[in-house]
Amino acid sequence: MTITITAFEQSPDRGKGLARDMPVRWALEEVGQPYTVRPVSFGAVKEATHRTRQPFGQIPTYEQGDLVLFESGAIVFHIAEQHVGLLPSNANARARAITWMFAALSTVEPPIVDRSIATLFERDQPWYDARLASIEGRLRTRLDELSIRLGDADWLDGSFSAGDLLMVAVLLRLKLSGILDEYPRISAYVARGEARPAFQRAFAAQLAAFNESCAG
Amino acid sequence: MTITITAFEQSPDRGKGLARDMPVRWALEEVGQPYTVRPVSFGAVKEATHRTRQPFGQIPTYEQGDLVLFESGAIVFHIAEQHVGLLPSNANARARAITWMFAALSTVEPPIVDRSIATLFERDQPWYDARLASIEGRLRTRLDELSIRLGDADWLDGSFSAGDLLMVAVLLRLKLSGILDEYPRISAYVARGEARPAFQRAFAAQLAAFNESCAG
Repeated sequence: MTITITAFEQSPDRGKGLARDMPVRWALEEVGQPYTVRPVSFGAVKEATHRTRQPFGQIPTYEQGDLVLFESGAIVFHIAEQHVGLLPSNANARARAITWMFAALSTVEPPIVDRSIATLFERDQPWYDARLASIEGRLRTRLDELSIRLGDADWLDGSFSAGDLLMVAVLLRLKLSGILDEYPRISAYVARGEARPAFQRAFAAQLAAFNESCAG
Repeated sequence: MTITITAFEQSPDRGKGLARDMPVRWALEEVGQPYTVRPVSFGAVKEATHRTRQPFGQIPTYEQGDLVLFESGAIVFHIAEQHVGLLPSNANARARAITWMFAALSTVEPPIVDRSIATLFERDQPWYDARLASIEGRLRTRLDELSIRLGDADWLDGSFSAGDLLMVAVLLRLKLSGILDEYPRISAYVARGEARPAFQRAFAAQLAAFNESCAG
Protein backbone atom coordinates (compact mmCIF):
# COMPACT_ATOMS: atom_id res chain seq x y z
CA MET A 1 0.00 0.00 0.00
CA THR A 2 1.28 3.44 -0.92
CA ILE A 3 2.51 5.67 1.88
CA THR A 4 1.40 9.29 1.52
CA ILE A 5 2.69 12.05 3.75
CA THR A 6 1.73 15.72 3.85
CA ALA A 7 4.27 18.53 3.81
CA PHE A 8 4.07 22.30 3.33
CA GLU A 9 3.69 23.28 -0.32
CA GLN A 10 6.29 25.98 0.34
CA SER A 11 8.27 25.25 3.47
CA PRO A 12 8.71 28.31 5.74
CA ASP A 13 12.37 27.35 6.28
CA ARG A 14 12.97 27.62 2.50
CA GLY A 15 14.22 24.03 2.22
CA LYS A 16 16.65 24.01 5.15
CA GLY A 17 15.21 20.67 6.29
CA LEU A 18 13.73 22.02 9.53
CA ALA A 19 10.05 21.37 8.74
CA ARG A 20 8.57 18.36 10.47
CA ASP A 21 8.17 16.30 7.31
CA MET A 22 12.00 15.97 7.34
CA PRO A 23 12.31 13.34 10.13
CA VAL A 24 9.50 11.33 8.50
CA ARG A 25 11.17 11.47 5.07
CA TRP A 26 14.47 10.53 6.72
CA ALA A 27 12.93 7.54 8.54
CA LEU A 28 11.31 6.31 5.31
CA GLU A 29 14.67 6.59 3.52
CA GLU A 30 16.45 4.71 6.33
CA VAL A 31 14.10 1.75 5.94
CA GLY A 32 13.95 1.99 2.14
CA GLN A 33 10.23 2.69 1.79
CA PRO A 34 9.00 4.79 -1.14
CA TYR A 35 6.40 7.48 -0.41
CA THR A 36 4.40 10.16 -2.09
CA VAL A 37 3.89 13.69 -0.79
CA ARG A 38 0.65 15.63 -0.78
CA PRO A 39 1.66 19.29 -0.56
CA VAL A 40 -0.60 21.54 1.55
CA SER A 41 -0.59 25.32 1.77
CA PHE A 42 -0.38 27.33 5.03
CA GLY A 43 -4.06 28.08 4.61
CA ALA A 44 -5.20 24.55 3.81
CA VAL A 45 -3.40 23.10 6.81
CA LYS A 46 -5.84 24.96 9.08
CA GLU A 47 -8.96 23.92 7.15
CA ALA A 48 -11.44 21.20 8.10
CA THR A 49 -10.29 18.71 5.45
CA HIS A 50 -6.73 18.64 6.73
CA ARG A 51 -7.89 18.72 10.35
CA THR A 52 -9.68 15.39 9.89
CA ARG A 53 -6.15 14.02 9.48
CA GLN A 54 -4.37 16.40 11.85
CA PRO A 55 -6.59 17.96 14.54
CA PHE A 56 -3.96 20.59 15.43
CA GLY A 57 -3.63 21.87 11.85
CA GLN A 58 0.01 20.92 11.36
CA ILE A 59 2.14 18.83 9.04
CA PRO A 60 3.12 16.04 8.57
CA THR A 61 0.46 13.36 8.37
CA TYR A 62 0.96 9.75 7.29
CA GLU A 63 -1.59 7.74 5.36
CA GLN A 64 -1.39 4.13 4.29
CA GLY A 65 -4.60 2.35 3.35
CA ASP A 66 -7.11 3.02 6.11
CA LEU A 67 -4.50 4.23 8.57
CA VAL A 68 -4.11 7.96 9.21
CA LEU A 69 -1.47 9.13 11.68
CA PHE A 70 -0.05 12.49 12.75
CA GLU A 71 2.77 13.72 15.03
CA SER A 72 6.21 13.28 13.54
CA GLY A 73 7.38 11.28 16.58
CA ALA A 74 4.49 8.84 16.30
CA ILE A 75 4.97 8.49 12.54
CA VAL A 76 8.71 7.82 12.89
CA PHE A 77 7.90 5.24 15.56
CA HIS A 78 5.30 3.57 13.33
CA ILE A 79 7.80 3.37 10.46
CA ALA A 80 10.43 1.99 12.85
CA GLU A 81 8.03 -0.66 14.13
CA GLN A 82 6.92 -1.76 10.65
CA HIS A 83 10.35 -2.07 9.03
CA VAL A 84 13.85 -3.19 9.95
CA GLY A 85 16.55 -0.58 10.45
CA LEU A 86 15.49 1.94 13.10
CA LEU A 87 15.05 -0.12 16.26
CA PRO A 88 17.30 -2.85 17.71
CA SER A 89 15.89 -6.37 17.80
CA ASN A 90 17.04 -6.95 21.40
CA ALA A 91 14.06 -6.08 23.63
CA ASN A 92 15.95 -4.01 26.21
CA ALA A 93 17.95 -2.12 23.58
CA ARG A 94 14.70 -1.44 21.72
CA ALA A 95 13.06 0.02 24.86
CA ARG A 96 16.11 2.23 25.44
CA ALA A 97 16.02 3.48 21.84
CA ILE A 98 12.35 4.40 22.34
CA THR A 99 13.35 6.22 25.54
CA TRP A 100 15.66 8.42 23.46
CA MET A 101 12.81 9.17 21.05
CA PHE A 102 10.78 10.55 23.95
CA ALA A 103 13.82 12.30 25.45
CA ALA A 104 14.44 14.10 22.15
CA LEU A 105 10.87 15.38 21.93
CA SER A 106 9.96 15.88 25.61
CA THR A 107 13.22 16.98 27.22
CA VAL A 108 15.62 18.36 24.61
CA GLU A 109 13.21 19.94 22.13
CA PRO A 110 11.09 22.22 24.38
CA PRO A 111 13.81 24.82 25.16
CA ILE A 112 14.85 24.71 21.48
CA VAL A 113 11.30 25.49 20.34
CA ASP A 114 11.00 28.16 23.05
CA ARG A 115 14.12 29.76 21.65
CA SER A 116 12.66 29.69 18.12
CA ILE A 117 9.39 31.24 19.32
CA ALA A 118 11.29 33.98 21.16
CA THR A 119 13.58 34.83 18.23
CA LEU A 120 10.64 34.83 15.80
CA PHE A 121 7.97 36.63 17.81
CA GLU A 122 9.53 38.37 20.82
CA ARG A 123 12.59 40.02 19.29
CA ASP A 124 11.06 43.52 19.40
CA GLN A 125 10.00 43.26 23.04
CA PRO A 126 11.99 45.27 25.63
CA TRP A 127 12.44 42.06 27.61
CA TYR A 128 13.77 39.99 24.69
CA ASP A 129 17.38 39.84 25.93
CA ALA A 130 16.40 38.73 29.44
CA ARG A 131 14.00 36.15 28.08
CA LEU A 132 16.53 34.75 25.59
CA ALA A 133 19.17 34.46 28.33
CA SER A 134 16.71 32.52 30.50
CA ILE A 135 15.80 30.11 27.67
CA GLU A 136 19.42 29.60 26.66
CA GLY A 137 20.32 28.84 30.27
CA ARG A 138 17.79 26.01 30.33
CA LEU A 139 18.91 24.88 26.88
CA ARG A 140 22.61 24.76 27.80
CA THR A 141 21.79 22.65 30.87
CA ARG A 142 20.17 20.09 28.57
CA LEU A 143 23.04 20.22 26.05
CA ASP A 144 25.63 19.83 28.83
CA GLU A 145 23.79 16.75 30.07
CA LEU A 146 23.35 15.31 26.58
CA SER A 147 27.02 15.85 25.76
CA ILE A 148 28.11 14.07 28.94
CA ARG A 149 25.85 11.09 28.25
CA LEU A 150 26.92 10.88 24.60
CA GLY A 151 30.60 10.99 25.55
CA ASP A 152 32.77 9.72 22.72
CA ALA A 153 30.14 7.35 21.35
CA ASP A 154 28.88 7.65 17.80
CA TRP A 155 25.24 7.27 18.80
CA LEU A 156 23.23 7.52 22.02
CA ASP A 157 22.90 3.79 22.73
CA GLY A 158 24.72 1.34 20.47
CA SER A 159 23.81 1.50 16.79
CA PHE A 160 21.96 4.36 15.08
CA SER A 161 18.27 4.21 15.98
CA ALA A 162 15.03 6.15 15.70
CA GLY A 163 16.12 7.80 18.97
CA ASP A 164 19.19 9.25 17.24
CA LEU A 165 17.12 10.21 14.21
CA LEU A 166 14.74 12.33 16.31
CA MET A 167 17.53 13.73 18.51
CA VAL A 168 19.55 14.87 15.47
CA ALA A 169 16.41 16.32 13.86
CA VAL A 170 15.68 18.29 17.04
CA LEU A 171 19.29 19.52 17.41
CA LEU A 172 19.43 20.65 13.76
CA ARG A 173 17.07 23.49 14.71
CA LEU A 174 20.01 25.00 16.60
CA LYS A 175 22.40 24.85 13.66
CA LEU A 176 22.10 28.50 12.67
CA SER A 177 22.23 29.74 16.28
CA GLY A 178 25.94 28.96 16.76
CA ILE A 179 25.18 27.35 20.13
CA LEU A 180 26.18 23.88 18.94
CA ASP A 181 29.71 25.21 18.29
CA GLU A 182 30.12 25.21 22.08
CA TYR A 183 29.49 21.44 22.09
CA PRO A 184 32.02 19.64 19.87
CA ARG A 185 30.70 16.18 20.72
CA ILE A 186 27.12 17.16 19.91
CA SER A 187 28.20 18.96 16.73
CA ALA A 188 30.04 15.84 15.57
CA TYR A 189 26.99 13.72 16.46
CA VAL A 190 24.69 15.95 14.39
CA ALA A 191 27.20 15.87 11.52
CA ARG A 192 27.22 12.05 11.63
CA GLY A 193 23.43 12.12 11.31
CA GLU A 194 23.54 14.54 8.39
CA ALA A 195 26.17 12.43 6.64
CA ARG A 196 23.93 9.37 6.47
CA PRO A 197 22.88 8.62 2.88
CA ALA A 198 19.23 8.38 3.99
CA PHE A 199 19.42 11.86 5.52
CA GLN A 200 20.98 13.19 2.33
CA ARG A 201 18.22 11.71 0.17
CA ALA A 202 15.49 13.08 2.46
CA PHE A 203 17.12 16.50 2.58
CA ALA A 204 17.44 16.62 -1.22
CA ALA A 205 13.79 15.63 -1.63
CA GLN A 206 12.43 18.38 0.64
CA LEU A 207 14.76 20.96 -0.94
CA ALA A 208 13.64 19.93 -4.43
CA ALA A 209 10.00 20.30 -3.31
CA PHE A 210 10.73 23.83 -2.05
CA ASN A 211 12.57 24.82 -5.23
CA GLU A 212 9.74 23.47 -7.40
CA SER A 213 7.16 25.42 -5.39
CA CYS A 214 9.13 28.61 -6.03
CA ALA A 215 9.61 27.95 -9.72
CA GLY A 216 5.97 26.93 -10.18
CA MET B 1 11.09 -9.42 38.19
CA THR B 2 10.36 -6.52 40.52
CA ILE B 3 9.62 -3.14 38.95
CA THR B 4 11.30 -0.24 40.76
CA ILE B 5 10.59 3.38 39.93
CA THR B 6 12.14 6.54 41.33
CA ALA B 7 10.11 9.47 42.63
CA PHE B 8 10.91 12.57 44.65
CA GLU B 9 11.33 11.88 48.35
CA GLN B 10 9.24 15.00 48.97
CA SER B 11 7.27 15.98 45.89
CA PRO B 12 7.43 19.72 45.12
CA ASP B 13 3.68 19.70 44.37
CA ARG B 14 2.99 18.45 47.94
CA GLY B 15 1.17 15.34 46.74
CA LYS B 16 -1.13 16.96 44.17
CA GLY B 17 -0.25 14.21 41.69
CA LEU B 18 1.57 16.53 39.26
CA ALA B 19 5.04 15.01 39.56
CA ARG B 20 6.07 12.80 36.69
CA ASP B 21 6.01 9.57 38.66
CA MET B 22 2.20 9.93 38.66
CA PRO B 23 1.55 8.79 35.03
CA VAL B 24 3.93 5.86 35.56
CA ARG B 25 2.17 4.82 38.79
CA TRP B 26 -1.18 5.22 37.01
CA ALA B 27 -0.08 3.05 34.07
CA LEU B 28 1.19 0.34 36.43
CA GLU B 29 -2.13 0.39 38.30
CA GLU B 30 -4.10 0.18 35.02
CA VAL B 31 -2.29 -3.02 34.06
CA GLY B 32 -2.23 -4.41 37.59
CA GLN B 33 1.53 -4.54 38.08
CA PRO B 34 2.98 -4.09 41.56
CA TYR B 35 6.01 -1.83 41.92
CA THR B 36 8.37 -0.47 44.51
CA VAL B 37 9.50 3.14 44.78
CA ARG B 38 13.02 4.33 45.47
CA PRO B 39 12.64 7.88 46.83
CA VAL B 40 15.32 10.38 45.77
CA SER B 41 15.94 13.86 47.17
CA PHE B 42 16.18 17.04 45.04
CA GLY B 43 19.91 16.94 45.61
CA ALA B 44 20.44 13.26 44.83
CA VAL B 45 18.54 13.51 41.55
CA LYS B 46 21.33 15.72 40.18
CA GLU B 47 24.14 13.47 41.38
CA ALA B 48 26.19 11.03 39.31
CA THR B 49 24.55 7.88 40.69
CA HIS B 50 21.08 8.94 39.62
CA ARG B 51 22.36 10.34 36.33
CA THR B 52 23.57 6.88 35.30
CA ARG B 53 19.85 6.06 35.22
CA GLN B 54 18.57 9.47 34.14
CA PRO B 55 21.11 11.61 32.26
CA PHE B 56 18.98 14.77 32.65
CA GLY B 57 18.75 14.48 36.44
CA GLN B 58 14.99 14.03 36.61
CA ILE B 59 12.46 11.55 37.92
CA PRO B 60 11.00 9.02 37.23
CA THR B 61 13.16 6.11 36.19
CA TYR B 62 12.04 2.51 35.70
CA GLU B 63 14.14 -0.52 36.52
CA GLN B 64 13.30 -4.17 35.99
CA GLY B 65 16.14 -6.69 35.98
CA ASP B 66 18.83 -5.34 33.64
CA LEU B 67 16.54 -2.81 32.02
CA VAL B 68 16.80 0.86 33.01
CA LEU B 69 14.48 3.39 31.35
CA PHE B 70 13.69 7.07 31.83
CA GLU B 71 11.20 9.61 30.36
CA SER B 72 7.67 9.15 31.68
CA GLY B 73 6.30 8.84 28.12
CA ALA B 74 8.73 6.05 27.26
CA ILE B 75 8.06 4.25 30.54
CA VAL B 76 4.28 4.42 30.08
CA PHE B 77 4.75 3.09 26.54
CA HIS B 78 6.94 0.24 27.78
CA ILE B 79 4.35 -0.72 30.39
CA ALA B 80 1.61 -0.50 27.73
CA GLU B 81 3.58 -2.75 25.38
CA GLN B 82 4.36 -5.37 28.03
CA HIS B 83 0.88 -5.75 29.50
CA VAL B 84 -2.74 -5.79 28.32
CA GLY B 85 -4.94 -2.79 29.06
CA LEU B 86 -3.39 0.38 27.68
CA LEU B 87 -3.15 -0.20 23.93
CA PRO B 88 -5.79 -1.67 21.56
CA SER B 89 -4.98 -5.01 19.95
CA ASN B 90 -6.08 -3.82 16.49
CA ALA B 91 -2.91 -2.63 14.71
CA ASN B 92 -4.32 0.62 13.31
CA ALA B 93 -6.08 1.54 16.55
CA ARG B 94 -2.82 0.83 18.42
CA ALA B 95 -0.87 3.16 16.10
CA ARG B 96 -3.49 5.89 16.62
CA ALA B 97 -3.32 5.50 20.42
CA ILE B 98 0.47 5.92 20.21
CA THR B 99 -0.09 9.04 18.10
CA TRP B 100 -2.09 10.52 20.99
CA MET B 101 0.76 9.71 23.39
CA PHE B 102 3.10 11.81 21.26
CA ALA B 103 0.45 14.52 20.74
CA ALA B 104 0.02 14.85 24.52
CA LEU B 105 3.75 15.31 25.12
CA SER B 106 4.87 17.13 21.95
CA THR B 107 1.88 19.33 21.07
CA VAL B 108 -0.34 19.87 24.11
CA GLU B 109 2.20 19.85 26.94
CA PRO B 110 4.76 22.47 25.76
CA PRO B 111 2.54 25.56 26.25
CA ILE B 112 1.35 24.11 29.58
CA VAL B 113 4.94 23.73 30.81
CA ASP B 114 5.79 27.20 29.44
CA ARG B 115 2.93 28.56 31.51
CA SER B 116 4.22 26.78 34.63
CA ILE B 117 7.75 28.12 34.08
CA ALA B 118 6.40 31.66 33.63
CA THR B 119 4.19 31.56 36.72
CA LEU B 120 6.97 30.05 38.83
CA PHE B 121 9.99 32.04 37.66
CA GLU B 122 8.88 35.12 35.72
CA ARG B 123 6.09 36.48 37.92
CA ASP B 124 8.19 39.38 39.20
CA GLN B 125 9.33 40.48 35.75
CA PRO B 126 7.81 43.68 34.29
CA TRP B 127 6.89 41.72 31.18
CA TYR B 128 5.11 38.89 33.01
CA ASP B 129 1.57 39.88 31.95
CA ALA B 130 2.48 40.20 28.27
CA ARG B 131 4.36 36.92 28.33
CA LEU B 132 1.54 35.07 30.11
CA ALA B 133 -1.01 36.39 27.60
CA SER B 134 1.16 35.16 24.73
CA ILE B 135 1.55 31.67 26.25
CA GLU B 136 -2.14 31.40 27.10
CA GLY B 137 -3.03 32.39 23.54
CA ARG B 138 -1.01 29.45 22.20
CA LEU B 139 -2.41 27.20 24.90
CA ARG B 140 -6.05 28.10 24.14
CA THR B 141 -5.49 27.36 20.45
CA ARG B 142 -4.40 23.83 21.40
CA LEU B 143 -7.29 23.37 23.85
CA ASP B 144 -9.80 24.62 21.25
CA GLU B 145 -8.45 22.06 18.78
CA LEU B 146 -8.39 19.27 21.32
CA SER B 147 -11.96 20.01 22.42
CA ILE B 148 -13.20 19.92 18.82
CA ARG B 149 -11.50 16.61 18.13
CA LEU B 150 -12.72 15.08 21.39
CA GLY B 151 -16.31 16.19 20.71
CA ASP B 152 -18.76 14.22 22.84
CA ALA B 153 -16.61 11.10 22.99
CA ASP B 154 -15.44 9.68 26.29
CA TRP B 155 -11.86 9.14 25.10
CA LEU B 156 -9.75 10.38 22.20
CA ASP B 157 -10.00 7.30 19.99
CA GLY B 158 -12.31 4.47 21.09
CA SER B 159 -11.50 2.92 24.46
CA PHE B 160 -9.27 4.45 27.13
CA SER B 161 -5.62 4.07 26.11
CA ALA B 162 -2.12 5.15 27.06
CA GLY B 163 -2.80 8.17 24.83
CA ASP B 164 -5.64 9.25 27.12
CA LEU B 165 -3.55 8.50 30.20
CA LEU B 166 -0.78 10.86 29.09
CA MET B 167 -3.21 13.51 27.79
CA VAL B 168 -5.13 13.59 31.08
CA ALA B 169 -1.85 13.69 33.04
CA VAL B 170 -0.70 16.66 30.95
CA LEU B 171 -4.02 18.52 31.26
CA LEU B 172 -4.10 18.03 35.05
CA ARG B 173 -1.26 20.55 35.27
CA LEU B 174 -3.84 23.19 34.31
CA LYS B 175 -6.32 22.23 37.00
CA LEU B 176 -5.47 25.03 39.42
CA SER B 177 -5.26 27.68 36.66
CA GLY B 178 -9.01 27.77 36.06
CA ILE B 179 -8.42 27.62 32.28
CA LEU B 180 -10.02 24.19 31.95
CA ASP B 181 -13.30 25.70 33.21
CA GLU B 182 -13.58 27.35 29.78
CA TYR B 183 -13.59 23.90 28.19
CA PRO B 184 -16.45 21.77 29.55
CA ARG B 185 -15.70 18.82 27.27
CA ILE B 186 -12.05 18.76 28.28
CA SER B 187 -12.94 19.21 31.97
CA ALA B 188 -15.31 16.25 31.78
CA TYR B 189 -12.62 14.22 29.97
CA VAL B 190 -10.07 14.97 32.71
CA ALA B 191 -12.66 14.11 35.38
CA ARG B 192 -13.29 10.74 33.67
CA GLY B 193 -9.57 10.05 33.86
CA GLU B 194 -9.38 11.02 37.52
CA ALA B 195 -12.39 8.82 38.33
CA ARG B 196 -10.69 5.67 37.12
CA PRO B 197 -9.91 3.31 40.02
CA ALA B 198 -6.31 2.94 38.79
CA PHE B 199 -5.86 6.73 38.85
CA GLN B 200 -7.28 6.85 42.37
CA ARG B 201 -4.91 4.16 43.61
CA ALA B 202 -1.91 5.89 42.00
CA PHE B 203 -2.94 9.26 43.39
CA ALA B 204 -3.37 7.84 46.89
CA ALA B 205 0.05 6.17 46.72
CA GLN B 206 1.92 9.35 45.76
CA LEU B 207 0.00 11.38 48.36
CA ALA B 208 0.81 8.82 51.05
CA ALA B 209 4.49 9.03 50.05
CA PHE B 210 4.40 12.81 50.41
CA ASN B 211 2.66 12.67 53.78
CA GLU B 212 5.14 10.10 55.08
CA SER B 213 8.07 12.25 53.96
CA CYS B 214 6.64 15.17 55.96
CA ALA B 215 5.96 13.09 59.04
CA GLY B 216 9.38 11.43 58.88
